[in-house]
Amino acid sequence: MRKSIITTILFFLVFVTYAQNFTSIKSENKPLILKSFGSFYEGGENVEQSSDELGSFGPGGHISINQMYVHYMIPAENKVPFVLIHGMALTGKCWETTPDGRMGWDEYFVRQGHGVYVIDQVGRGRSGFNQANINKVRTGAAQNSTLPILMRFSDEVVWRNFRIGSDINKPFPNEQFPIEAMDALSIQGVPDLTMSLPFPNPTYKALSDLAEHVDGAILLSHSQSGSFPLEAALVNPKGIKGIVMVEPGMVSTSFRQDQLDELAKIPILIVFGDNLEIETGIPNFSWKVSYDNCLKFKNQINAIGGNAKVIHLPEIGILGNSHMIMQDKNNLEIADIILNWQENNK
Amino acid sequence: MRKSIITTILFFLVFVTYAQNFTSIKSENKPLILKSFGSFYEGGENVEQSSDELGSFGPGGHISINQMYVHYMIPAENKVPFVLIHGMALTGKCWETTPDGRMGWDEYFVRQGHGVYVIDQVGRGRSGFNQANINKVRTGAAQNSTLPILMRFSDEVVWRNFRIGSDINKPFPNEQFPIEAMDALSIQGVPDLTMSLPFPNPTYKALSDLAEHVDGAILLSHSQSGSFPLEAALVNPKGIKGIVMVEPGMVSTSFRQDQLDELAKIPILIVFGDNLEIETGIPNFSWKVSYDNCLKFKNQINAIGGNAKVIHLPEIGILGNSHMIMQDKNNLEIADIILNWQENNK
Repeated sequence: MRKSIITTILFFLVFVTYAQNFTSIKSENKPLILKSFGSFYEGGENVEQSSDELGSFGPGGHISINQMYVHYMIPAENKVPFVLIHGMALTGKCWETTPDGRMGWDEYFVRQGHGVYVIDQVGRGRSGFNQANINKVRTGAAQNSTLPILMRFSDEVVWRNFRIGSDINKPFPNEQFPIEAMDALSIQGVPDLTMSLPFPNPTYKALSDLAEHVDGAILLSHSQSGSFPLEAALVNPKGIKGIVMVEPGMVSTSFRQDQLDELAKIPILIVFGDNLEIETGIPNFSWKVSYDNCLKFKNQINAIGGNAKVIHLPEIGILGNSHMIMQDKNNLEIADIILNWQENNK
Repeated sequence: MRKSIITTILFFLVFVTYAQNFTSIKSENKPLILKSFGSFYEGGENVEQSSDELGSFGPGGHISINQMYVHYMIPAENKVPFVLIHGMALTGKCWETTPDGRMGWDEYFVRQGHGVYVIDQVGRGRSGFNQANINKVRTGAAQNSTLPILMRFSDEVVWRNFRIGSDINKPFPNEQFPIEAMDALSIQGVPDLTMSLPFPNPTYKALSDLAEHVDGAILLSHSQSGSFPLEAALVNPKGIKGIVMVEPGMVSTSFRQDQLDELAKIPILIVFGDNLEIETGIPNFSWKVSYDNCLKFKNQINAIGGNAKVIHLPEIGILGNSHMIMQDKNNLEIADIILNWQENNK
């Protein structure tokens, strides 16, 4: 009986249409004061494409591809800025207002005096993508195998892979993700062209260029973009004042010695949430393995005099965090941990 | 001789790499003060897709498609807000910092006391798109003809079609677009899936829902989205307090009488720039025809007691505006014309 009441409540929490629109957003009481604000692009290349490749809208010619969109906010205090780098099948949106309408890390970091640069990875969101092969295959001018791979997570996969519950509609008892807003999380999903981008991913260089152009920044990545700050530092470390990797999906444990030497010059923080041992539902992918690799990487860095730290939140008494830490109910508490680390590791 | 010097100067202006990055942005002196700030989505539907359709990343399941991204800023003064709706092959970016680094209309409207909602049309930018058929064709599970059409303008087409010059690298003598920033305009381009969206375009309803959810707004469209505010009003006019169409590409002159009666209840402003008579380079498309249709539409509305106005900028002494009025050098002067019209047509 009691179980059936709980199931019914959960059903309503999860399946009653939850439209995240303006009416569900909780505004802050204090105004947000920005010294400057705007957007621009980093990187990109100008290429020539045929009319066919351009979707037959007018004659062929040049277009820009592989650019990276950057939206920024800078407060008067102007502490070292953060570049927020989203994960797989998401965009810069994931750092903004949370799915249940609370303040995102973008706004919180600014309110704490840090400039914030929110990017869309090359190939996604306002960065756009190279459409040429899709148009060519449609008209028969290219083979089907040249089409890009466009990845998305299903809502069902998200429950376990984002560690919101032990299974679909079965949240962990102390879950920190606001499960009433699962629909609003689903709606943030966009197709992910990472697998079909040029190699190396143009986002790496765009990030290192960005850090240099803004005279120094901390690169903060999440999930699929986990190792991007490391890759950016290996392109050009000049502007990279620190690296924060939140729940990185894949971090290499086989960097060359000269690469480790370079990375050891930069303060590095890695943060993981709870329930790492769960089966993700993604073949050959385990958060526990990602975490263990990060411990190995940290040890490699610290063994040569570097400054890398891994925080596993449950070990410091913070339980129930999902993979989407920046959207969890205690998101600002975790942001403070990152900001305190930054303060102590300049 | 003189001609060759001018040609050389133009060559440098246009072709020397112009990276629009943070260093080229001119910040305002006065801080931007926001009462609230954030983002959310309107609309969308939850559909079931196979593993194949999802790019084979995990098993099949449900995802959200056809949602509309909305980024908002609200100042303390809180005058009637504007919803800024971008045109073809662009995103909400086009309203932000101009290609040459000046303040965009998003910030200017906020500084004048109006809330601003910048959207990405369904199928573009942070709104994402439905990737199912692209993945299915790649694996041979669907016919090539089911692939979406992805349209982009070439930089060469932009010169004439956006009325920046009489031909490539030949700006009009009094051109208002900052031609030194043509590269930074090019880099704003993204693939446009409009032709392959469900009918009617889900953006229409999302816009009318947005206007209602924010308790009233003025819908301001540009170019390809020209008629979107009209279509949104015909879905549900409740929240739509005014309509501004900047350089609308296509406005119907064959609305039904009951539709005209509905639209005649809303104040409507249409704004066009200079050099409308130029050959666009796009087959069967002419800005002069678009303009003439708008005059006919205005007359239809006003004949039944409505309040529609067309401003052809050269007729009030403002010369040289391109199609990208919100990015032109006199963009704030034109914004003031729109804001004055709003003040006088509440």
